Amino acid sequence: MSQRIRIFDTTLRDGEQSPGCSMGPAQKLVMARALAELGVDVIETGFPASSQADRESTDQIARDVGKSVTLATLSRCAEADITACAKAMEHAHKPRIHVFISTSPLHRQFKLGLSREQVLERAVSAVSFAKRYFDDIEFSAEDAIRTEFDFLTEIFAATAAAGAQTLNVPDTVGYTTPDEIRSLFQRLRAAVPGEHLIWSTHCHNDLGLAVANSLAAIEGGARQVECTVNGIGERAGNCAVEELAMVLRVRQAYYEADTGIHSERLVPTSRLLQRLTGMMVQRNKAVVGVNAFAHEAGIHQHGMLKHRETYEIMRPEDVGWPKSELVLGRHSGRAAVSERLRALGFVFEEGEFEHVFNNFKDLTESQRVVTDKDLEELILGSSAVAGQGYRLASMKLGDLGGKARADVELSDPEGNRVTGEAESDGPVAALFEAMAAATGVSLQLESYQVHSIGMGEHARGEASLSVLFEEEELTGIGVSRDIIEASALAWLDVANRVLRRRVAGA
Amino acid sequence: MSQRIRIFDTTLRDGEQSPGCSMGPAQKLVMARALAELGVDVIETGFPASSQADRESTDQIARDVGKSVTLATLSRCAEADITACAKAMEHAHKPRIHVFISTSPLHRQFKLGLSREQVLERAVSAVSFAKRYFDDIEFSAEDAIRTEFDFLTEIFAATAAAGAQTLNVPDTVGYTTPDEIRSLFQRLRAAVPGEHLIWSTHCHNDLGLAVANSLAAIEGGARQVECTVNGIGERAGNCAVEELAMVLRVRQAYYEADTGIHSERLVPTSRLLQRLTGMMVQRNKAVVGVNAFAHEAGIHQHGMLKHRETYEIMRPEDVGWPKSELVLGRHSGRAAVSERLRALGFVFEEGEFEHVFNNFKDLTESQRVVTDKDLEELILGSSAVAGQGYRLASMKLGDLGGKARADVELSDPEGNRVTGEAESDGPVAALFEAMAAATGVSLQLESYQVHSIGMGEHARGEASLSVLFEEEELTGIGVSRDIIEASALAWLDVANRVLRRRVAGA
Repeated sequence: MSQRIRIFDTTLRDGEQSPGCSMGPAQKLVMARALAELGVDVIETGFPASSQADRESTDQIARDVGKSVTLATLSRCAEADITACAKAMEHAHKPRIHVFISTSPLHRQFKLGLSREQVLERAVSAVSFAKRYFDDIEFSAEDAIRTEFDFLTEIFAATAAAGAQTLNVPDTVGYTTPDEIRSLFQRLRAAVPGEHLIWSTHCHNDLGLAVANSLAAIEGGARQVECTVNGIGERAGNCAVEELAMVLRVRQAYYEADTGIHSERLVPTSRLLQRLTGMMVQRNKAVVGVNAFAHEAGIHQHGMLKHRETYEIMRPEDVGWPKSELVLGRHSGRAAVSERLRALGFVFEEGEFEHVFNNFKDLTESQRVVTDKDLEELILGSSAVAGQGYRLASMKLGDLGGKARADVELSDPEGNRVTGEAESDGPVAALFEAMAAATGVSLQLESYQVHSIGMGEHARGEASLSVLFEEEELTGIGVSRDIIEASALAWLDVANRVLRRRVAGA
Repeated sequence: MSQRIRIFDTTLRDGEQSPGCSMGPAQKLVMARALAELGVDVIETGFPASSQADRESTDQIARDVGKSVTLATLSRCAEADITACAKAMEHAHKPRIHVFISTSPLHRQFKLGLSREQVLERAVSAVSFAKRYFDDIEFSAEDAIRTEFDFLTEIFAATAAAGAQTLNVPDTVGYTTPDEIRSLFQRLRAAVPGEHLIWSTHCHNDLGLAVANSLAAIEGGARQVECTVNGIGERAGNCAVEELAMVLRVRQAYYEADTGIHSERLVPTSRLLQRLTGMMVQRNKAVVGVNAFAHEAGIHQHGMLKHRETYEIMRPEDVGWPKSELVLGRHSGRAAVSERLRALGFVFEEGEFEHVFNNFKDLTESQRVVTDKDLEELILGSSAVAGQGYRLASMKLGDLGGKARADVELSDPEGNRVTGEAESDGPVAALFEAMAAATGVSLQLESYQVHSIGMGEHARGEASLSVLFEEEELTGIGVSRDIIEASALAWLDVANRVLRRRVAGA
């Protein structure tokens, strides 16, 4: 009989806290909807005690997809953290608290400065206190892999007795091997029995083994796997949900385990996350990379033409790669636009879709064909997601004997016109300086990229750039037919994020 | 006792044949030198029977690093393929031929249209014929994982008897699991005994398990692993050498196996490949991604500050991440420049270095500081690597009431001035059209990207773009302080590649 493996998605928590993956509350909500649509069992929305942004976005997600999916929030073993989780998830129908403490000798000594007894006592107190607010409690022993086995069983047994039903065994530093973790789960389950307990694995990918270790944990009895979309997360990231789900699908007979993942939503969800964060997967990324189903070498193409399975163990459409992209235009109706938006990873409530559809119709008046990038621009550029702020009114570039000059006109958040001008080595540098002059926002760029697919009549450039703001990396995206304008829009996107943070922090 | 695992690097063959990874002979030579420096045991340089380019680049590599490293070339079971390999590797001191044929029922029926007996006969004939030219013969049973076990042992025993010393067991479609492949190697070694035989594993990453499967194969007795830098290769790619090498290093006591890889060359080699192909790794790529050693979340940073091992199982400097980048300028000597070039993955012979160093000195006359990107530009832009072709003389952009206009002046391969002009929606589109007019080369762009790190005084933009030319993807790179100029240089880089292909094909 096939075992049902629960997918605990931590894209919005462990994923989002890694460099380059920051998302604002509106982006997290778009992503949470996509995760619910993907079929994950639990969405970890954030770490409420750590920031106002995490509290806000958890609350927004709770009021939205929190009606149907289990939501989890992270909490240290501290009463203030636990009450922050309870408050943030007030409107969630199936809230789970995820309480953690470090258990390894290295972490006890250097991170916590606590003895075994003190760590045990804090864990049990926290779970008992959490019981006042939550039925569904997960306990994580951080750095479990490097923890003494007897202490690990002691703390899991004690927190289970205090009310935790899910026991998570993280490989926090990405150090373990498949055989080691399989054996660890077998021994833990024998030492801490309980039919109702769900053992959970949380693997990091520092040595490239996160997926293999998660599979071995399942063989050892794990029934929950903590994953992220595209494998994002601290350092080299977490177990990639698209890889784990497809191993269990393709090798179902071997592992005798399956998930609730709707595999045809994997590519749309992956693409959405890439667009929201600007954190692109490499071409040869398994399942969701653009090369994953590409065949170039002559030998292989020859075999493919004769019989598909010669070189393919899954079909691109099984994981949501579009077969072909229908052209959208003036005559496209609600169904066609809605279907395409789903393929791009977006999930809307009815009223919201009407708003996007109206913008789509407006666009068809000025252009014959509406591309995927146009649609993404319609949504990512809409105020619901991007929030209010400075808007680009016009820009003009000139060339002054080797120096580039830029003049910009913006509307500020109150709708007033502001202008800026600057000269520099290149047009983009001049433009950014002109916008800095107009807004009074000075940005230290960490990275700057422009992407474009296709250069034909309807080609678009997408610029993304990131800055460090109070030790957090903020990313902005701009899309336009002109890559210089796309760069300007991306700069403004980041500047507006910085301004919102300043307001929120004030 | 620790087992010595041989690393067979196929970056230049399986890697290079995947979409987006094409390299010309000059680029392959730069990469081959970096691979030799990294400490791989065998470099597979190409598939000589498949193209003139593979024959040329194998010959160049053979005359260069072929003096010290074992070189391998791929060959079907056909006499013409084998003699092409012998010819291409004429100047290699340690040549190996890598003969393959498909063995699985699916491949026999749909790809080859041959019976078991016919496949066996061809394999043995080919190995026997190869023996005339080569002492070192590797035989691969393509799609071995899906081949009947009795046929697999039969063909390995027969080819070993005919003279193959290395027997490769590819998971061609990336389907197997760690336990399956470990057991397969154990059974194969029992069924086909031979102290002198080297069993080899070649895993694909379609399900994200290439590294884990390669490790399991080692546990089952494999003593050669076929790898690529950054895990590039067909579809989702091959086993990533940086991950495999670091698992065996970090978990040496567990696996009791090690490689000859100089781990501090991993990041320089990875970065070089990214720059040569334009195929970037994702930020959260294990070992070589920019996030691999980054710590953002507050909790983790706290632990890191107190004790590094709290969250790190290897040090960034162990894999070649630079601790800090010294500023190079007018007063930098040969040693400093040479050291920095090594960190960027470049390996020079003495005379070549002098040429680069002279260019470096020239550059310091016009700018105070020389960045890594400047150095890369000096080398990648030099004629030795880039070849001759059209060069940018000047460009001018204008704005005509909403339309962008570009005027370009180029020098053609004979040194004559040619000009072009165009108008379009954006400056880059206008520029590309103007260059198409000037060169008579019309390019259908597949992708176009601009990257920049840092936007300060010395920032540079790097543009990369790719086109499809006769079913092959060609990538061009341009670097400049001005991203528009960088785009122009990248366009010319591709156009020159297309022109060289036309000449080669004529």
